[in-house]
Amino acid sequence: MSSTKTAETHPAYELLYWPGIPGRGEFIRLAFEAAGVSYKDVANESEDAITSLLSPSSTTPPIFAPPALLVPGAGKHNTPLLLYQTPSILSYIGPKLNLAGADETEKAWILSHTLTALDLNNEAHDTHHPIAVGAYYEEQKEEALKKARDFRENRIPKFLGFFERVLKGNEVEGQSSYLVGEMLSYADTTLWHVLAGLEFAFPKEIASRKKDYPLLFGNFYASVKETKGIAGYLASGRRKPFSMGVFRHYPELDRH
Amino acid sequence: MSSTKTAETHPAYELLYWPGIPGRGEFIRLAFEAAGVSYKDVANESEDAITSLLSPSSTTPPIFAPPALLVPGAGKHNTPLLLYQTPSILSYIGPKLNLAGADETEKAWILSHTLTALDLNNEAHDTHHPIAVGAYYEEQKEEALKKARDFRENRIPKFLGFFERVLKGNEVEGQSSYLVGEMLSYADTTLWHVLAGLEFAFPKEIASRKKDYPLLFGNFYASVKETKGIAGYLASGRRKPFSMGVFRHYPELDRH
Repeated sequence: MSSTKTAETHPAYELLYWPGIPGRGEFIRLAFEAAGVSYKDVANESEDAITSLLSPSSTTPPIFAPPALLVPGAGKHNTPLLLYQTPSILSYIGPKLNLAGADETEKAWILSHTLTALDLNNEAHDTHHPIAVGAYYEEQKEEALKKARDFRENRIPKFLGFFERVLKGNEVEGQSSYLVGEMLSYADTTLWHVLAGLEFAFPKEIASRKKDYPLLFGNFYASVKETKGIAGYLASGRRKPFSMGVFRHYPELDRH
Repeated sequence: MSSTKTAETHPAYELLYWPGIPGRGEFIRLAFEAAGVSYKDVANESEDAITSLLSPSSTTPPIFAPPALLVPGAGKHNTPLLLYQTPSILSYIGPKLNLAGADETEKAWILSHTLTALDLNNEAHDTHHPIAVGAYYEEQKEEALKKARDFRENRIPKFLGFFERVLKGNEVEGQSSYLVGEMLSYADTTLWHVLAGLEFAFPKEIASRKKDYPLLFGNFYASVKETKGIAGYLASGRRKPFSMGVFRHYPELDRH
């Protein structure tokens, strides 16, 4: 399908997420932006639209947490379909956006690698909230220092080494630009955002480790950024900067 | 499809997971057991088979961590398909095992709820390993006491309250026995195992909270256990007891 055709036949997708930060909503945004398919970014376009939609008893089934995606007419009996959980949303829209690989094998691997990139995203979050997600960082700073050290020394190299091997294994088809197969997938956009977040949150750690992952940082990272949809999104100014969301830059948690 | 027919036409699935504990491999086992579809539980049936398969560079693409699933002939050019990441494996086998709902909407919700149950599973794990997954519990016990308190007081009620609402919202179709639609899905077996794990790890906490979730503990929990495939599995003795895996019973981490 050409992107012109897909743009014409898509429903009016609505992304439901907290405003002002990239957060986990960004993984959904990047898929739409990479595909050049329009979507309504509800909270960033109109205030107060989110709270009621995300209240516990407003929908059936309820949704546990944002991001959520509303797809008009796609549910049972042409009702709106409301989905939650980032990997589930990506798994649903991936094939429709032509970001889920060329066959069933690639589709499955793309979901698997995406889940691993999101695990890395979650572990990065837990470095500043190791004890309680509902408490302030300052209340768990001592534990955060320990957690961040383990994350930097053990977890970052484990995850980055894995993705370097994935790129190496797909080097002939993917040219170090794609994790799976011969074209961009939502696994690529997801991992790219996590790498960007790590570079924001742990600039010294990533700077010192980049050379160990030549395919990942020497090729993949720049390549995803330069794809048409992502480059256009970055140029548009719509992408929210990292601040105090999943990825936070606390210098004391970085290498020093 | 009748279960007889599906059993005859399935490939020789092989589950790759560490031996001796239920762990995250159990979510895959339960799907096969619930569907009555045979599978080879590699590590629990023959020793030393796992390590080489899970070594970093033995497969393309590599797998990040077990569980993994090998499906002979299902990959590109009839090669074996090797999948990893629990939700990705469940998403792949779910429709083939008739455990993924009646339509696309149910299929998507089943994956979403499964991801949420697995998030609860991971948070339960983190109560005894809040700082470093590669270090001993005893080395992070102080932090574990804090993490477990937040988990018991805030996270358990948030998750269980959510699933109670899911059951309530599906009460007409699911009779409080199924999270989605009119039949058993891998979301049900996944949540059931997490509830069993919570009861093992936090017996006092769960005992004191059960009454707050009448659909979840008054109906769903027993109902899943009594479905034909799961009841047969439990009677077979093949299910490994909880011990020192994801769910651990440290009395000091429970309510007291």
